[in-house]
Amino acid sequence: MANMLPFSSNGLEPATNGLEPAINGKEAANLHDLSEPFVDNLAGQLFLNEAFKIIVEEVLCKGTDVKQKVCEWKEPEQLALLLDLELRATGESQHRLLQRVEDVAKYSIKTSHPRFFNQLFAGVDYHALAGRFLTEALNTNLYTYEVAPVFVLMELEVLRGLRQLVGWTEGDGLFCPGGSISNMYAMNLARYQLFPEVKSQGLWGLPRLTIFTSIESHYSVKKGAAFLGIGTDNIILVKVDDGGRMIPEDLDEKIKLAKSQGAVPLLVSCTAGTTVQGAFDPLDHIADVCEKHKLWMHVDAAWGGSVLFSKQHRHLMKGVERANSVAWNPHKMLTAGLQCSALLLQDTTNLLKKCHSANATYLFQQDKFYDVNLDLGDKSIQCSRKVDCVKLWLMWKAVGSSGLAKRVDRAFVHARYLVEQMKKREGFHLLHEPEFVNVCFWFIPPSIRGKEGNKDYQDRLAKVAPVIKERMIKEGTMMVGYQPLGNKVNFFRMVVFSPLLSQKDMDFFLDEIERLGKDL
Amino acid sequence: MANMLPFSSNGLEPATNGLEPAINGKEAANLHDLSEPFVDNLAGQLFLNEAFKIIVEEVLCKGTDVKQKVCEWKEPEQLALLLDLELRATGESQHRLLQRVEDVAKYSIKTSHPRFFNQLFAGVDYHALAGRFLTEALNTNLYTYEVAPVFVLMELEVLRGLRQLVGWTEGDGLFCPGGSISNMYAMNLARYQLFPEVKSQGLWGLPRLTIFTSIESHYSVKKGAAFLGIGTDNIILVKVDDGGRMIPEDLDEKIKLAKSQGAVPLLVSCTAGTTVQGAFDPLDHIADVCEKHKLWMHVDAAWGGSVLFSKQHRHLMKGVERANSVAWNPHKMLTAGLQCSALLLQDTTNLLKKCHSANATYLFQQDKFYDVNLDLGDKSIQCSRKVDCVKLWLMWKAVGSSGLAKRVDRAFVHARYLVEQMKKREGFHLLHEPEFVNVCFWFIPPSIRGKEGNKDYQDRLAKVAPVIKERMIKEGTMMVGYQPLGNKVNFFRMVVFSPLLSQKDMDFFLDEIERLGKDL
Repeated sequence: MANMLPFSSNGLEPATNGLEPAINGKEAANLHDLSEPFVDNLAGQLFLNEAFKIIVEEVLCKGTDVKQKVCEWKEPEQLALLLDLELRATGESQHRLLQRVEDVAKYSIKTSHPRFFNQLFAGVDYHALAGRFLTEALNTNLYTYEVAPVFVLMELEVLRGLRQLVGWTEGDGLFCPGGSISNMYAMNLARYQLFPEVKSQGLWGLPRLTIFTSIESHYSVKKGAAFLGIGTDNIILVKVDDGGRMIPEDLDEKIKLAKSQGAVPLLVSCTAGTTVQGAFDPLDHIADVCEKHKLWMHVDAAWGGSVLFSKQHRHLMKGVERANSVAWNPHKMLTAGLQCSALLLQDTTNLLKKCHSANATYLFQQDKFYDVNLDLGDKSIQCSRKVDCVKLWLMWKAVGSSGLAKRVDRAFVHARYLVEQMKKREGFHLLHEPEFVNVCFWFIPPSIRGKEGNKDYQDRLAKVAPVIKERMIKEGTMMVGYQPLGNKVNFFRMVVFSPLLSQKDMDFFLDEIERLGKDL
Repeated sequence: MANMLPFSSNGLEPATNGLEPAINGKEAANLHDLSEPFVDNLAGQLFLNEAFKIIVEEVLCKGTDVKQKVCEWKEPEQLALLLDLELRATGESQHRLLQRVEDVAKYSIKTSHPRFFNQLFAGVDYHALAGRFLTEALNTNLYTYEVAPVFVLMELEVLRGLRQLVGWTEGDGLFCPGGSISNMYAMNLARYQLFPEVKSQGLWGLPRLTIFTSIESHYSVKKGAAFLGIGTDNIILVKVDDGGRMIPEDLDEKIKLAKSQGAVPLLVSCTAGTTVQGAFDPLDHIADVCEKHKLWMHVDAAWGGSVLFSKQHRHLMKGVERANSVAWNPHKMLTAGLQCSALLLQDTTNLLKKCHSANATYLFQQDKFYDVNLDLGDKSIQCSRKVDCVKLWLMWKAVGSSGLAKRVDRAFVHARYLVEQMKKREGFHLLHEPEFVNVCFWFIPPSIRGKEGNKDYQDRLAKVAPVIKERMIKEGTMMVGYQPLGNKVNFFRMVVFSPLLSQKDMDFFLDEIERLGKDL
């Protein structure tokens, strides 16, 4: 079982560790001498071993160590010089290549670092990461049972597990390259279900279709409408309440209005966990509206879907079981690793395949000796489709549904702690009480505290976050995102869910914001 | 530099190697005690080390060893039982999880094996694989310079290198999740360039658009037309010559016909390296037709693009520099690993961004302290976009353009060898002389040799490939694809390009086909 390759104690010393003659040597062989392959497996595996050690040390050990920087800021021109990116005619020594692996690690952002709060992904799960390495090494494609027997069955099982959490005992689904494309699938499926002729004839013969989503939904709804030929003008934006949740009554009004203008309402894209505020649209109420008007109900739960693991918090998505489709990205809150994005469907009529199939005979031969329903590829708009299920499956096996539930519950506890601390400190002003783990706040520097009435207050406040952000990146101490929203000027969005996070990281965060912003 | 983690000599012995208490223990901690993180980095890294050793041994050592099987066939029901895929409430021991890593490897197809000829990807490049592990560990997203400084610059450089091979000193591009989606981008860009209002208004106000592609082009053109709302009926299939190459005169005729019927011809999707026969459409002639009719010329070079590295063979793509867009998958012939698919554009007017941008303020803030043109994300239809450049960059650095050229040249030598051997053996009948590395042939079993005139000859021949395929998979000795094409009944498509390939593998292939088919 154990691998018997010699582990060199110093992978970067040239010429002494067997790495030098290596792989390139073979390729210098006569092109027409076919007796030997070009790549030498043993030399290649030696290189991989050395690279693995650098990855563990630089990315995983240092990259999760709070005594180390989150990022090593360089101006683009300077970084390009340091990395020597240019691609040349001749190859390089193994020694130089290992140095390159180290450089890439050094100047990349440590997204696993406990003080990386910049995106809706963060942290690392080592079981998931092992699953990802396994996936990369096995290098196959999820289109037929023939080339991916384990992964076809595994994807079906993982999708079944996710659907069960939604509340469906049957259904369909697929892993997609990100939540945006999952959302596009939902639009295309809704369109095909209503007008199957669209697949062959296109949109020209159809009435104008409209899509409804809240004003705080993700921008992918717009991108999808543009890409699918529906057009962004045919996205009708529904109002939200103070917490950022879609208002069902406004949805109902806007559907009626669209109908009266001759459009055919197609789909409502609800959001479970909005990108900025972390708001959950009231799914049960929206389901009533969708039922009344016979619209496809899609839930973009890319960010919030993981609350379904938690007995305590799954009420946030009450009504999700009434949806037609759900997009859920375990690469976000569950730390499965990019990319891991599931599209889940309640449909049991094989809509996914009917809508997307092209019946290519070179891949999906019908005279195979096994059940060709296991050839999943024709459900997809892709041909090559990456295997995204292994990481989630192995992590789920490792900690169980209960372990994943605990991580979700813990994230809420973290958010609550952060909110309480902010209330105790002068200068931190919450946008609202969070219902999820997005903690949105302004930092009010001493110079403008108590001056809300001043004419230039909003202008000055808007400039605070970008400066603090620049300072933290240049010092490399932490990373957090900021943005404006509607009439609210730049504020920070802190997200707390990484399994590497502890109280001291949150205390550090608050201290650091104060330190970086105190003179502004 | 070197990683000092203890390497256990036997990772699977429970309780003796420090892996048992491990990660799960932490998660049993009090939910409200925030003093410690849930995940223990050291225990996690120990697990990853053990998993890495299994991956090297089972996937890379055994998986490339010709004395080992390419696949370990199991019926789906049996495989599901063996794998115990079910996801449960509680977690499992580290020992059990490592066994699972081994099981996944054992029952998966060894696509790196020198006798895996089943798809247009095969083999392994260890530098690329190191780049993939590095990418997975760094776990970031290619949307902003802020979270992916190294990868933003690297992607730009790799795209520049690929464009240079196309013949462009300027241009644009993006890595996409597979060639199908690259092809869809081309369609959307062509549509937007001609009718920018489509982005906001959709297709309703536009005339009917048509897309032209050869009858042997990839099925993704159809999938794209359906997804983009254009409709598969608006794909006009152009005739091919005996070798499978688009006939420019027929293209010209069909464009004129479409115009006469009131449609607006939008785009010609040429193929450089068709999926089955490996044919190269005559790009220069097609470019003349596109120029004459002012159509967007797209080249789907997902499979064949890599010939551009070869001085000897790049003539196959003469005229590619006149295209508007090229899709090229280095995960195929260059063995970069799935997924690695580049969309290349000649455009210098920022069309990619104009066509796809949504200007989300939470991600693409305009008041950042660095040049926001380095935030590439708004060029994409995705939000999360996987980093696909590192593997290609590191491999390119390792062997240089000249090394990659040699691999391409070598693949042609392999194909030539195979063709010559087939001509020497009774029973092998080529469809045609290959112009690329796809060697398409029928195996004629002894029982029907010389009986071409018999009424049931074609029916009997059609049944040969599926039986041989079933036998090889069940024995696990090798894998190769078969399909019918037009009026040609089932034939094998052998592809020879893996850098692990040598003459003995091709000799084995021929012997094995004879052995498996001699009684049919």
